[in-house]
Amino acid sequence: MSDTHDRPHTPLLDRVRTPADLKSLTDAELERLAHELRQETISAVSVTGGHLGAGLGVVELTVALHAVFDTPRDKLIWDVGHQCYPHKILTGRRDRIRTLRMGGGLSGFTKRAESEYDPFGAGHSSTSISAALGFAMAREMGADTGDAIAVIGDGAMSAGMAFEALNNAGHLGRRLFVILNDNEMSIAPPVGALSSYLSRLYAEAPFQDLRAAAKQAVGLLPEPFREGARRAKEMLKGMAVGGTLFEELGFSYIGPLDGHDLRQLLPVLRTARARADGPVLIHVVTQKGKGFAPAENAPDKGHARGKFDVVTGEQKKAPSNAPSYTKVFARALIDEAERDPKIVAVTAAMPDGTGLDLFAGRFPDRCFDVGIAEQHAVTFCAGLAAAGMRPFCAIYSTFLQRGYDQVVHDVAVQRLPVRFAIDRAGLVGADGPTHAGAFDVAFLSNLPGFVVMAAADEAELVHMVATARALDDRPSAFRYPRGEGVGVELPLHGAPLEIGRGRVVKEGGRVALLSLGARLAECLRAAEELDAMGLPCTVADARFAKPLDRELILRLAREHAALITVEEGATGGFGAHVLHLLAAEGALDRGLRIRTLTLPDRFIDQDSPERMYDAAGLTAPHIVSAALGALGRGDEARAAARAAGR
Amino acid sequence: MSDTHDRPHTPLLDRVRTPADLKSLTDAELERLAHELRQETISAVSVTGGHLGAGLGVVELTVALHAVFDTPRDKLIWDVGHQCYPHKILTGRRDRIRTLRMGGGLSGFTKRAESEYDPFGAGHSSTSISAALGFAMAREMGADTGDAIAVIGDGAMSAGMAFEALNNAGHLGRRLFVILNDNEMSIAPPVGALSSYLSRLYAEAPFQDLRAAAKQAVGLLPEPFREGARRAKEMLKGMAVGGTLFEELGFSYIGPLDGHDLRQLLPVLRTARARADGPVLIHVVTQKGKGFAPAENAPDKGHARGKFDVVTGEQKKAPSNAPSYTKVFARALIDEAERDPKIVAVTAAMPDGTGLDLFAGRFPDRCFDVGIAEQHAVTFCAGLAAAGMRPFCAIYSTFLQRGYDQVVHDVAVQRLPVRFAIDRAGLVGADGPTHAGAFDVAFLSNLPGFVVMAAADEAELVHMVATARALDDRPSAFRYPRGEGVGVELPLHGAPLEIGRGRVVKEGGRVALLSLGARLAECLRAAEELDAMGLPCTVADARFAKPLDRELILRLAREHAALITVEEGATGGFGAHVLHLLAAEGALDRGLRIRTLTLPDRFIDQDSPERMYDAAGLTAPHIVSAALGALGRGDEARAAARAAGR
Repeated sequence: MSDTHDRPHTPLLDRVRTPADLKSLTDAELERLAHELRQETISAVSVTGGHLGAGLGVVELTVALHAVFDTPRDKLIWDVGHQCYPHKILTGRRDRIRTLRMGGGLSGFTKRAESEYDPFGAGHSSTSISAALGFAMAREMGADTGDAIAVIGDGAMSAGMAFEALNNAGHLGRRLFVILNDNEMSIAPPVGALSSYLSRLYAEAPFQDLRAAAKQAVGLLPEPFREGARRAKEMLKGMAVGGTLFEELGFSYIGPLDGHDLRQLLPVLRTARARADGPVLIHVVTQKGKGFAPAENAPDKGHARGKFDVVTGEQKKAPSNAPSYTKVFARALIDEAERDPKIVAVTAAMPDGTGLDLFAGRFPDRCFDVGIAEQHAVTFCAGLAAAGMRPFCAIYSTFLQRGYDQVVHDVAVQRLPVRFAIDRAGLVGADGPTHAGAFDVAFLSNLPGFVVMAAADEAELVHMVATARALDDRPSAFRYPRGEGVGVELPLHGAPLEIGRGRVVKEGGRVALLSLGARLAECLRAAEELDAMGLPCTVADARFAKPLDRELILRLAREHAALITVEEGATGGFGAHVLHLLAAEGALDRGLRIRTLTLPDRFIDQDSPERMYDAAGLTAPHIVSAALGALGRGDEARAAARAAGR
Repeated sequence: MSDTHDRPHTPLLDRVRTPADLKSLTDAELERLAHELRQETISAVSVTGGHLGAGLGVVELTVALHAVFDTPRDKLIWDVGHQCYPHKILTGRRDRIRTLRMGGGLSGFTKRAESEYDPFGAGHSSTSISAALGFAMAREMGADTGDAIAVIGDGAMSAGMAFEALNNAGHLGRRLFVILNDNEMSIAPPVGALSSYLSRLYAEAPFQDLRAAAKQAVGLLPEPFREGARRAKEMLKGMAVGGTLFEELGFSYIGPLDGHDLRQLLPVLRTARARADGPVLIHVVTQKGKGFAPAENAPDKGHARGKFDVVTGEQKKAPSNAPSYTKVFARALIDEAERDPKIVAVTAAMPDGTGLDLFAGRFPDRCFDVGIAEQHAVTFCAGLAAAGMRPFCAIYSTFLQRGYDQVVHDVAVQRLPVRFAIDRAGLVGADGPTHAGAFDVAFLSNLPGFVVMAAADEAELVHMVATARALDDRPSAFRYPRGEGVGVELPLHGAPLEIGRGRVVKEGGRVALLSLGARLAECLRAAEELDAMGLPCTVADARFAKPLDRELILRLAREHAALITVEEGATGGFGAHVLHLLAAEGALDRGLRIRTLTLPDRFIDQDSPERMYDAAGLTAPHIVSAALGALGRGDEARAAARAAGR
C-alpha cells in the first residue's frame, strides 16, 4: 500500500535506530534530522490517515528531547499521545509506522505494551503530569528510573486534572519536567481564561524588562550559550511576565521558547537537565501542522485526517452514503432549539466532533465550549437545569467517564433534567480501546431516576433528541455510534417516544432478539438467517436501557423458546438489567434460554469497526450462534461460530 | 431529646423567620445576630452531632451574605455544604435544626428538595463554581434568577473541577461571585502548592504598597466606608499581592478580608453587589471552629463530631466494641509495608478518614496526601505502579467516582497494578445519599483485568490487603463498610486469598445465600431463620465480584432449589455478573429460582445505617422473604416482608 507513495529522502534518519544514535549527531545534524523526520511523518500519515497536525508541531521538540534526555531510562510521557508519531519513528518503530491505527499495526497513541519508550500510554488528555510525578516520586523512593518529562498541550492544561497534578508537584518540590506545548489551539481553538493568559503572555514577552527577568531566573539560567547573548536574551524574554501562574504553584518557569528552533530548545533542555533540582515548567510555543502547508492552512491545523495526497493535501475519503449520527444529532437539536428558546448546548472542547459547531453557528449565544473540562461541563449543565434551562451536554461516551461523579452527585442525586448526548458509543475503530464507548450504559443505568436511551438508527436518534427535550422532571441520556447512519429516511421533526417503551420490529415465534442500540441491523440480519433455518425470529428494539419495557421483555421471555439480548456495551448494562428484571419477576424460575451478548471482558485493539465487532462477538453470525446454542443446537451453533470467525 | 439541653438566649435570632428579616437590622444588630447564631449552631450540633467546625467558621459570612444579597432570588451555593447549618437556621429551618442528619430530619448538607434557599445541593466538594456559573449564564439568557454566589473553601479550590470552572467563568466574563473561604485547612490541613500560595498571600498582605493596590482596585473599590479610611486600607492590603492567580484567570480579586469581621464583610459585599460587572473573587479568611474553644483547639477544628457537652466539648460517643474497618485496613497495610518497601499509600485529603494518618505516622516518606484531587490521585498511583512501586490508593467509594475515567483509562487499559482500598462501601448513615458507596462494584467489575473484592468482616479485610499486595500483574480493589467490624479475631498477618475463589461458610441443602461483602452477617441470620423453617441454607461468601468463582456459583445453582445473591451495592454489580455467568453457562435454561438483592433504584435519605439497610431491603428478614418468594411460598414471604418492615 505504501509502495504506491514516494518515500522521502532521509539519509540521516536512516542511520537512527534508537534515540541513543542521536547522541553522536551535531546540533546542525539534529536540525537536518528534524527536517527528515517531518517529511517521513507526512509521508506515513498520507497512507494511514491519523493525527497529523499535533505530530508536525512537535518534530523539533521530539528530536531535542530524545537528544538531550536518556530515554527509555528517562521517562518521556506525551499527553494525549496523538502527537507521538515522530516519537515512534525515532524509537525503533519506523518500520511499522505505515501501519498506524490499522488492525495489528501501531496504535495511534502511546502504548506501554508497544515499546519501552512509551512508559505511560494515553488517549485521553491531561494525565501526563500525574503520571510523570508518579515516576519522579518512585525515583525519589529508590526505583530504578531516571528523569520524568511530561509534554502537555495548552488545551490539555485547562483540564482540572492537570491543575491538580501541578499543584501536587509544586507542593512535593521534587525534580520533574513539564513541557507546556503551547500551540495556541488544542483540537478546537482553545477556550477559557487560561488560554487567553497564555496568549497574552506570549504577546507581551518582547516588551519585558530583561533585568527583572534575569534576576528571577537565577539558578536556572542556561550555561553561557555558544550561540551568544542574543539567543540567551531571547530565551529570557518570557521570564519576567512568564509563568507567574506556574511559579505560584511552585514551578520554576522557563519560556516562552520557539518550539521549532533547535538552537533554543537544545541549550535550554541541556541546562534544565543539568541544573534542575525541583519542578520545572518549560513553555514552548509551536505551530500545529508546521511544515505542511495544507495542514497549516486548515482551520483545525490538520488535527486528524484520512489518507491524503502528500503534495496537495487532498483527502482520499470515500463518499458517504448516509449522514453521520453526529450531524443528525446536531440538526435535530437545532430543529428543537428553533422552537424552544430554553435549549442550550455544552461541549468540552469538541465542537466539531459532537456537531455542536453547527449548533453554535445557528445559536452562538446558546452554545458553550467549556474547554477540556468534562467535570465542569456536567455540573455547569446541572446549574443551567436548576435555573430552568434545557441543557444538552454533548460528550463522547469515553470522555463522559471524566464527569461521572458529577453525573451521579450533581445530576442524578438532584434529579436535574440534564440531557446527555453520548456520541461514539460502542467501538470506534482506529482510535482503539482508549476511545471505545463501552461503559456508559452500565454506569448510567444504575443511577436512580435516569432515562437511558440508545438509537438503533438515525431516525430514532432524531426522536430521542425530542424525547430528551420533553423530559423536564429527570435526567436523560441517549447514545449513538460513531460514523454514518444506516440510511433510513429522516423525520422532519422528532416526536417524543413513550418513556420506557420499546418496539417490535419484526414478529416471529421461536427466537426473540432484543437489541439496544445500533446493533439492530445485525439482529435483523441474524433473524433472516434464523428464519431461513426454520426458527422464526421476533426482533425488538428496546430503545430504553432505563426504564426497561417490563411488559415487552416479559412477553418476549414468555412467548419464545430463547431470548438473546444484544448491545454494543460492556456487561453490567442493558442485558444485566434485563436479567435483574427477569429474576425479580420469577421469569427465570421455570427456565429461560437467555443469552446476553455484550462487549467482551477485554479491551479490543484498533481495527476497522467491522473487524472490531467481529472480535467482540457482536455480528449477525455470532447472534445466530448464540441463539442456536441457547436452543441446544450445538453443532449448528459451532458451525455458525466458525462462519462468524471468517 | 433537645429538651435536655439548655437553649441559648437569642432574642434577635428569634425575630428572624427568613433572610428578608435581616434587611431591617442595623449593622450592629447583625453583629449581635451573628453571635446568637453561633450559640444556636453550637447548641444544635451538641444534640445532633455533625459538621461543627465548618459552620462556626462562616457564621458572620452567612449573616453578611443573607443581609446583602436577595436570597432566594439570588442563588447562594455553599460548596460541599457541610458549613450550611447557620444558613439553615436563618432560612426557615431553625425549628428542625435539632433533627440534623437524623432519619426524617434535615440533611447535613444543602439539598434542593429541602428549601428554596438551597438552589443547588452538595456533599462532594468543588462543585459550587460550576453550578453558580450555570445559574449566572441562565440569567444572561433570560432565566428569572438573580445573582449567583458560590462559597468555596481553600481545600475545595485545589480540586481540578474548581479550576475548570474558574477558567470557564473567567473566559465568559459575566457577573458572578465566588467567595473563597480560606480557613487555611479543609478537612485535613490542606496540602498542595495552591495552599501555600494562599498562606503566603495572607502573610504578605500587611507589607504591601497600598498605592499599587488602590490602582489595581479601580472599579471595585468599596463606597467610602462610614467606618473610615482605616478599614478601607486594611481591606485593600491584599490587593497588591493578592489574587494574581485569580486575576490571570479573569476574575477581579478582593481580599483578603477578615471573615469574622462584619465591618469588613458588609461594605465589601455591598459594593461588590452594586458594582460588579464580571466575575469577582472575594477572598475571606476565617477560622474553622471559631468561637467554640474545644473546636478551635482540636487538631481537626471540630470538623465532624458526635453529640457533645456544650461547655466542655466532651463527646458522648458510645464505647466501641470492635475496631473500625478503617483502622483494621490501616494496621494491615502498615504490617505489609514493614516487610515490603515498595508499598506506598495515597489519599486525597482524607488521611484521618482512610486511616492513612496512621500509615503516615509510621512511614512519612511513603504516604502522599495529594489534596482534594481524586483524578490526580488515581493517575499518580498509576505512574507509581508503572515505575515498579506497589501503590495503595485509599479513597471512599463515593469519592472514587471522581477518578473513574482515570481508573478506566490509566489503570485498567494499561493493566497497572494499582490497589484501591475503598472505604465507606455501602450505606453510610447520617451523611446520606451523596456519601453512599453504592456504585463501585458496578463501575469496577465491568473493567477488563480488574480484581474486585469485598470484605465480609475485618479479618477478611486483612487478607484482602495481603491479596492486593501480592497482585503485581493487574489492578485490584477491595471494599469495606463504614464503622466497626463484627468483632472477629484478627490474624497476625494477612495471607493472600486465592484469586476468584469464594468460601462456603455453612452448608445446607435447600436454599443458597451467596453474599458479597459485609451483609454476610445478615445472610447468616436469615439462614438461621430459614433453617428453623425447615429450609436448610448454604451460606457462601463470594469474596470476589471479579473474577467470579465460576465453580462455586454453578454448584450452588445446581444443588439448591433457590439462589439468592446479596450485596450492599447497586444493580449492575455482583448479582448482575452472577446472572451474566449463569445465562452464558446455560444454567438458567431449565429454571433457576434466583433473586438478586441489591440497593434499590432510588437514593436513600440519611438515617441510622440499620434503618437505611431496612429501607433498602437488605436485612435478614428481607433475605428470608426473598428466599421464600423464590420458592413460591408467597404467604410466608409476605409475612416475612411484614416482619422486615417492623
